[in-house]
Amino acid sequence: MVVVCLDLEGVLVPEVWINVAERTGIPELRRTTRDEPDYDKLMRFRLDLLDRHNLRLPQITEVIDGLEPLDGALEFLDWLRERFQVVILSDTYYDFARPLMRKLRYPTLFCHNLVVAPDGRIEDYRLRMRDQKQASVIALRAVHFPVIAAGDSYNDTTMLAAADEGILFRPPDTVVAEFPQYPVTRSYDELRAAVLAAQGRLEGAGR
Amino acid sequence: MVVVCLDLEGVLVPEVWINVAERTGIPELRRTTRDEPDYDKLMRFRLDLLDRHNLRLPQITEVIDGLEPLDGALEFLDWLRERFQVVILSDTYYDFARPLMRKLRYPTLFCHNLVVAPDGRIEDYRLRMRDQKQASVIALRAVHFPVIAAGDSYNDTTMLAAADEGILFRPPDTVVAEFPQYPVTRSYDELRAAVLAAQGRLEGAGR
Repeated sequence: MVVVCLDLEGVLVPEVWINVAERTGIPELRRTTRDEPDYDKLMRFRLDLLDRHNLRLPQITEVIDGLEPLDGALEFLDWLRERFQVVILSDTYYDFARPLMRKLRYPTLFCHNLVVAPDGRIEDYRLRMRDQKQASVIALRAVHFPVIAAGDSYNDTTMLAAADEGILFRPPDTVVAEFPQYPVTRSYDELRAAVLAAQGRLEGAGR
Repeated sequence: MVVVCLDLEGVLVPEVWINVAERTGIPELRRTTRDEPDYDKLMRFRLDLLDRHNLRLPQITEVIDGLEPLDGALEFLDWLRERFQVVILSDTYYDFARPLMRKLRYPTLFCHNLVVAPDGRIEDYRLRMRDQKQASVIALRAVHFPVIAAGDSYNDTTMLAAADEGILFRPPDTVVAEFPQYPVTRSYDELRAAVLAAQGRLEGAGR
């Protein structure tokens, strides 16, 4: 049995912060890990922006409640869960992800926690650990699972490197150029085929 | 966010081997980890029995297809998945578990693989690793999740010991007597309450 680790935003659901940026009219919130590989820097920048515009958790949750999984994502994920064990590895926060997880029928999600004040102000964020995506892949391999990982951006590349097989899904050109070793997929059909090909290689290798 | 690790048989679904024993009329197949704590010994005994009675995988899968989750199990699991990350840790096999996982809406399952011949004969079994339940709990804690584990039998006690909080669910008296340190629950309402109490303690401790 193979474990498939998937990134969340950009792979199964829209980029949360980009949508928050659009609905709140704060274009600077469009910045993602695709633009800024230093995640701590990016989050500090975001929380400062929210503070300056007096945006609290309920307003952001409302935006996220209105998002739907990407076209075909639910069908892809259902297909995957029938054949593999799936763990979603994301650098989002459980507070943000909850409505999306419901729409995806509650797959297992490893991510982080926000620190929210009683009045809804997002005071801080708590990374569960540094580079939890890579650490989680290593932990799954340590309990003897072969791991296939798929993601779209900079913050996925360490988990792709730690996995037995890494796959890029709709990556920006910069990531494709910097990480030419991973197959690039642009549709769920292509991702399905890449996952099955990777599974075939792992099973061929006696895993 | 807390990860809840649950045993499968006896906690969410009926004991598979007991049901196979009943429907095939081979009473010796009723033996479980509740009776024989040495899992290797138990499995060798089972596979020998299947061979002697010429029982193959499709016949066993047919029996399992007819099983349903325990009364209230699906509602309990749905409740749990809305509030926690859930990983099912079982010493069953993916081949056996598949129809039950569908009925449980595909939670993440860590278990083992059978070695099946083209004619359906179960030739052997491959434990993914020794004491995978305990190792999986340790791996989850290593990626900074507090872990609550719940199970019913001998083969769950090492995962209960490795977890931050351990809970027994409908255990036999022998296990209760040998492991008095764990709270004993007998219904899903009691298990829900015990999980929430454990979560409260973990969060109180700043986890």
